[in-house]
Amino acid sequence: MLNQQIVLAARPRGMVKPDDMALHSAQLADLQAGQLLVKNHFLSIDPAIRYWLNAGTTYIRGVDIGEPVRCFAAGEVVASQNDGFSVGQWVTGLFGAQEYAISDGVGLVCCDPADGSLSQHLGVLGMPGMTAYFGLLDKGQPQTGEVVFVSGAAGVVGTTVGQIAKLKGCQVIGSAGSDEKCRYLTEAGFDAAFNYKTEDSDAALKRLAPGGIHIYFDNVGGDTLDAALLNLARGARVVICGALSQYNESAYAGPKNYMKILTARGILTGIIVFDYASQWPAAVRELAGWLREGSVSTREVIEPGLANFPSALVRLYQGAAFGKLLVAV
Amino acid sequence: MLNQQIVLAARPRGMVKPDDMALHSAQLADLQAGQLLVKNHFLSIDPAIRYWLNAGTTYIRGVDIGEPVRCFAAGEVVASQNDGFSVGQWVTGLFGAQEYAISDGVGLVCCDPADGSLSQHLGVLGMPGMTAYFGLLDKGQPQTGEVVFVSGAAGVVGTTVGQIAKLKGCQVIGSAGSDEKCRYLTEAGFDAAFNYKTEDSDAALKRLAPGGIHIYFDNVGGDTLDAALLNLARGARVVICGALSQYNESAYAGPKNYMKILTARGILTGIIVFDYASQWPAAVRELAGWLREGSVSTREVIEPGLANFPSALVRLYQGAAFGKLLVAV
Repeated sequence: MLNQQIVLAARPRGMVKPDDMALHSAQLADLQAGQLLVKNHFLSIDPAIRYWLNAGTTYIRGVDIGEPVRCFAAGEVVASQNDGFSVGQWVTGLFGAQEYAISDGVGLVCCDPADGSLSQHLGVLGMPGMTAYFGLLDKGQPQTGEVVFVSGAAGVVGTTVGQIAKLKGCQVIGSAGSDEKCRYLTEAGFDAAFNYKTEDSDAALKRLAPGGIHIYFDNVGGDTLDAALLNLARGARVVICGALSQYNESAYAGPKNYMKILTARGILTGIIVFDYASQWPAAVRELAGWLREGSVSTREVIEPGLANFPSALVRLYQGAAFGKLLVAV
Repeated sequence: MLNQQIVLAARPRGMVKPDDMALHSAQLADLQAGQLLVKNHFLSIDPAIRYWLNAGTTYIRGVDIGEPVRCFAAGEVVASQNDGFSVGQWVTGLFGAQEYAISDGVGLVCCDPADGSLSQHLGVLGMPGMTAYFGLLDKGQPQTGEVVFVSGAAGVVGTTVGQIAKLKGCQVIGSAGSDEKCRYLTEAGFDAAFNYKTEDSDAALKRLAPGGIHIYFDNVGGDTLDAALLNLARGARVVICGALSQYNESAYAGPKNYMKILTARGILTGIIVFDYASQWPAAVRELAGWLREGSVSTREVIEPGLANFPSALVRLYQGAAFGKLLVAV
């Protein structure tokens, strides 16, 4: 059987281009004992994909030329020689940008259709939702009445952080890169949102949070992180999740206002979602409940067709899409 | 009665110069009810003094032209109209660079001669010692067998941090700016010390702590902080105390490797010693015990004569002296 794939055609330099990838057909191997065959329905377009296209990374080997581009995907088991998985089951994992994936079952997450749609298991019920959940609740420790500021707020992690913070009784401010994204954030329940491209972040924070911010959930780094540091309330928690503004830079800009953590009696820490793997099932159930009652919502942008994977990936870094970006295979 | 003072003659720009200060004689006022008169014996030369000479600072008003230069001092009460203080008592406080100070008693610390010498109450038993004690023990939470790295280690804060860490069973590495200072550190009980001016800090840390560092106590900021971040062990605590390398810069260099806090599952926090004021007496007693048994030691450099205050202050920033720098009035 033939398997359509998006493979790495050339190692990208700087910003990834569609031409760095190519559509390719490969013969699918026969299943061995212990393996299962997954038919991918959705591919997840995540910031980390660009990292994995480098020759070497710190925590996982780089994708080889000619190999399918590594990405998370959600699909169903269509054949199984593994006792832990049965045909028809929903699973997510690092299946790559292809129609079918053969897996030995290690690292797969089984998804319950009762919790949400298959695509939601890649977003609000998947790794991004878990990142928001544990980053805010465990690392941020939000208290009723506190001010929470989230950057990159129109992404699925950011929006989910803000919505969970509202559930915890916080005042929530988001920043994003367009007025359309800011409108979306206030519709999604944020108390306020500002466009960092048209308003200075420090001025916006002083306007919206004159008493300072208690939790800063950082998806972007750079100038926004420095502005947040200038506006910390006493005892603030800075939770580093990502540094989207810096991923295409040769060296990261360090937060020059880091001494404000000292004067604010704050802490800076980070969230690595895989550290919470044993607690994911309970968190998925809680998030699924919030989804059903409508206190957490999700916006999905689904690009049709495997062939559109390269252009979707480029759009992610251009900030052209928001919510959860997916490719339907 | 005449009172000799070192007053601010001109507001310094950049590095402070001896000419920015001048020796001056002023008439001492009569004591009012509630006041006491302190005869200063020792003036403490601390990094913060330079800050206080600016026109405006964030947490305390700047010293005015013609006003005695603000500094901590240790002396004895020679007259008192305040029921809380009696003649002969040892006290420390922000008495300024002068022979005599009149105080209303607020913010003064009473010192027990049984704990140590009067000058030690400005160093290892005073604010620097308290900074080391609470910064390491409360913020750093050292555990037996962990690796502690201290920069600016030949200063009284740094040396005390290292010596307390040794008492807690840690492996202790210090950095300083001369081979002489490094020799002093190993004599003071550090397991290792390196001269950051002749060896790259990242290379030195990889050589001395191949398994990474669990606590970094940061007195300097800048390149040393970035090198420490590259070498964090999992779960590391970065305790920011000062940024001596940055005080004369117009803008601080931010730690460009801050994302290492995330990947190391670490935290960055800071120490403000005044937050622990209620716990100082017990800490002074414990430090005094360690001093007596010799597990904590202190090196004092005492410049004779009030007139040498300006040159002593300049020497501090030049890194020419180490240990605790004092002026004997």
